[in-house]
Amino acid sequence: MHPQLNSHGELRHLLSTEGLPREVLLRILDTAQGFVSFGDREVKKVPLLRGKSVFNLFFENSTRTRTTFEIAAQRLSADVFNLDIQRSSTSKGESLLDTIANLVAMDADIFVVRHAQSGAPYLIAQHVPTHVHVVNAGDGRHAHPTQGLLDMTTIRHYKPDFSSLTVAIVGDIVHSRVARSAIHALTTLGVPEVRAVGPKTLVPGDLRAMGVRVCHDIDEGLRGADVVMMLRLQNERMAGGLLPSASEFHMMYGLTPERLALARPDAIVMHPGPINRGVEIDSTVADGGQSVILPQVRFGIAVRMAVLSIIANAGA
Amino acid sequence: MHPQLNSHGELRHLLSTEGLPREVLLRILDTAQGFVSFGDREVKKVPLLRGKSVFNLFFENSTRTRTTFEIAAQRLSADVFNLDIQRSSTSKGESLLDTIANLVAMDADIFVVRHAQSGAPYLIAQHVPTHVHVVNAGDGRHAHPTQGLLDMTTIRHYKPDFSSLTVAIVGDIVHSRVARSAIHALTTLGVPEVRAVGPKTLVPGDLRAMGVRVCHDIDEGLRGADVVMMLRLQNERMAGGLLPSASEFHMMYGLTPERLALARPDAIVMHPGPINRGVEIDSTVADGGQSVILPQVRFGIAVRMAVLSIIANAGA
Amino acid sequence: MHPQLNSHGELRHLLSTEGLPREVLLRILDTAQGFVSFGDREVKKVPLLRGKSVFNLFFENSTRTRTTFEIAAQRLSADVFNLDIQRSSTSKGESLLDTIANLVAMDADIFVVRHAQSGAPYLIAQHVPTHVHVVNAGDGRHAHPTQGLLDMTTIRHYKPDFSSLTVAIVGDIVHSRVARSAIHALTTLGVPEVRAVGPKTLVPGDLRAMGVRVCHDIDEGLRGADVVMMLRLQNERMAGGLLPSASEFHMMYGLTPERLALARPDAIVMHPGPINRGVEIDSTVADGGQSVILPQVRFGIAVRMAVLSIIANAGA
Repeated sequence: MHPQLNSHGELRHLLSTEGLPREVLLRILDTAQGFVSFGDREVKKVPLLRGKSVFNLFFENSTRTRTTFEIAAQRLSADVFNLDIQRSSTSKGESLLDTIANLVAMDADIFVVRHAQSGAPYLIAQHVPTHVHVVNAGDGRHAHPTQGLLDMTTIRHYKPDFSSLTVAIVGDIVHSRVARSAIHALTTLGVPEVRAVGPKTLVPGDLRAMGVRVCHDIDEGLRGADVVMMLRLQNERMAGGLLPSASEFHMMYGLTPERLALARPDAIVMHPGPINRGVEIDSTVADGGQSVILPQVRFGIAVRMAVLSIIANAGA
Repeated sequence: MHPQLNSHGELRHLLSTEGLPREVLLRILDTAQGFVSFGDREVKKVPLLRGKSVFNLFFENSTRTRTTFEIAAQRLSADVFNLDIQRSSTSKGESLLDTIANLVAMDADIFVVRHAQSGAPYLIAQHVPTHVHVVNAGDGRHAHPTQGLLDMTTIRHYKPDFSSLTVAIVGDIVHSRVARSAIHALTTLGVPEVRAVGPKTLVPGDLRAMGVRVCHDIDEGLRGADVVMMLRLQNERMAGGLLPSASEFHMMYGLTPERLALARPDAIVMHPGPINRGVEIDSTVADGGQSVILPQVRFGIAVRMAVLSIIANAGA
Repeated sequence: MHPQLNSHGELRHLLSTEGLPREVLLRILDTAQGFVSFGDREVKKVPLLRGKSVFNLFFENSTRTRTTFEIAAQRLSADVFNLDIQRSSTSKGESLLDTIANLVAMDADIFVVRHAQSGAPYLIAQHVPTHVHVVNAGDGRHAHPTQGLLDMTTIRHYKPDFSSLTVAIVGDIVHSRVARSAIHALTTLGVPEVRAVGPKTLVPGDLRAMGVRVCHDIDEGLRGADVVMMLRLQNERMAGGLLPSASEFHMMYGLTPERLALARPDAIVMHPGPINRGVEIDSTVADGGQSVILPQVRFGIAVRMAVLSIIANAGA
């Protein structure tokens, strides 16, 4: 059985962009597009999830991602419950699956799960009844599929034809669930050239197995790109010795106006946020005319509304 | 004046199962029964508490119980406010009754109170105006009436005739508000034999005053029982020297398949959760065909919906 | 451009009572009056903000104030999001304005901001698009305008003619945003005598520039007053050496029944809460017939409903 699709090939759980067929990805993007202008409405509320119970299970803290899911669910009229996991029964030694079984008994409809362990959302998805749905909101280094999908929505908004694009992803690719989710989606949607750009410690050669072109030289990586996706530099990487310092990273891989000029003149600049100004990206670029960083945030709400409404209507 | 009933004998506050007349208990159980199938509905929402303000006042942390009340109140369409008591004015030295008076001035309708001090919900109930209602969500070692009522709903679902039952409650009876609330309800509902089963340190002989049969021998306690209610073993008890160790407790009082075989073949096994697998209960029993632990959780939502909707409609 | 009004002179942001024209203040008070009896309704809910997103941004913790805004917004049918700022991206080094830009991209309609830095809500108001509104819920020592407005609503309820009143504000005036917001509103509304009463360390002579009469003698300050506004004594002041001790403060400036007898017989006693019983106010006064401390709390919900509904309807 497919871990994410039901017997009719419809999306039941969203766990990863990997393994999702092109038509499923496109259906999400099309649905998201319909929700993009939703934020301009006088009344930002539709009854698509009225009377459904959405549980935010954030085993790893992320106010930002949790809030976007809460906004999306509320705008769909769902009842949203934020579980304070750090203070809950799991700290009394209850197992993850016992916690889930209890919440299912409370008639949960959808679990939105963030977990430090890769695979935790899969484990949950395998143990819920067929009318219950799971959305991965980030698991370890593995996947962050709604981020990947909002990146695709953003790209399609500005560059409608995936089949002619060159996309450069710059930064710490190997530890990034954001990069991983984007690469799988870009490949499935037919983008002919995806480049992974960064130092050898963060972009090892074996990433080629994912179908990307590995570039250790930033200029080579950016040249002629239609889309530049910058990744957030995690401070932990520096502590771990994989990187010398934030300023050296900026010198070698930071996105400056000069470097951006190597990309196509109409290239867009993306970043999952929160940005480190002056580290992976210059403020002039982040705030400049080619930046679509804030539209990404808006598309993020639309994509999450799309995913929640699609899975809620998927049968067994 | 009755602390829980109004002048018409209707439930105004739910503070304890002790002292509640049989017909009041039965009315709650009947109402809960009507809400049990509610979770299967497409839209889990009724407007019974629309525009009412329910305040969760958890002076003692319990994500699990708080969430069940939040779910129940939301499904009744109430506005629910979770006060972060640890970070609020009480830490600025405001007295409990001043905090309550302030919230009453904000037009609170219902307070759901969890407090480490036995009696705190009574104190609050004595000081609110007649249109405001209090539900005890657990006070010290005293009472946890919605847990007691969900236990009764569960028992009646599987064993409709209280007057023919033998119920064995196993574990740390003396410190348990769950046990206390269950015993009072069982007695009022006419259960002829309620057994308190456990070591002398946790089940002293003077419990007989509550109308229970005290059994220090687990086999004697379980023999012929229709209902086996296991209690959660609190780790604090071991630290306090009342118990040798978790594994010794399991050896002497843990519910194994062999021991369960002493009860009636159609006996049900209950537990308030979260369970300590391998301590008070074996996994094979917890997950087995006689276990009704997860249905208890579901009945818990129904009972809380019943209590909230009943008290909200009680006059002075 | 006026920081708080749009081109039609309507309230766009509420940042301070300072600089607000009399007619704008009166419109808020009139609107609040209409919401005062709202709490008595069977269904405390109007759809004035349905489908609007209100974000509570409390950079400084205040469960009490946050809850009053949450109640007000919920009763207006808004979707309310409480951001856990301490745990959010700001702790990852994201700037305040980047956080705001992100939330605007999520289609926020109203920000309710509490911040330790005076002026933070102004900064935010300067950087949001015209359809987004900011309410200051307390910034440093600067302003707490909804508190000031609820004080005015309370005064007008009991003493309808501002032009004939003597108002005594007693306590730590110089550090109090509550006092500052009240003084500006009282002056604009035409109160002929506003007295600032307290020791020289807390009520320096240069407060006269705000148009108040400075009284270091409590008896002189209270004599003939129609309204006595007590301020909360902050413990930090004692630690800072500005005050000897709580009991000495009580002896010199605490409101006792004897001192209150110096005011007019029909004088009202106010306090922003939470009260320190036996420090700035005696229990007999706080709980006595002249105290309107709890009605203030109720007016506080009405004023916040008024402010939220007025600004939400203000255009550019």
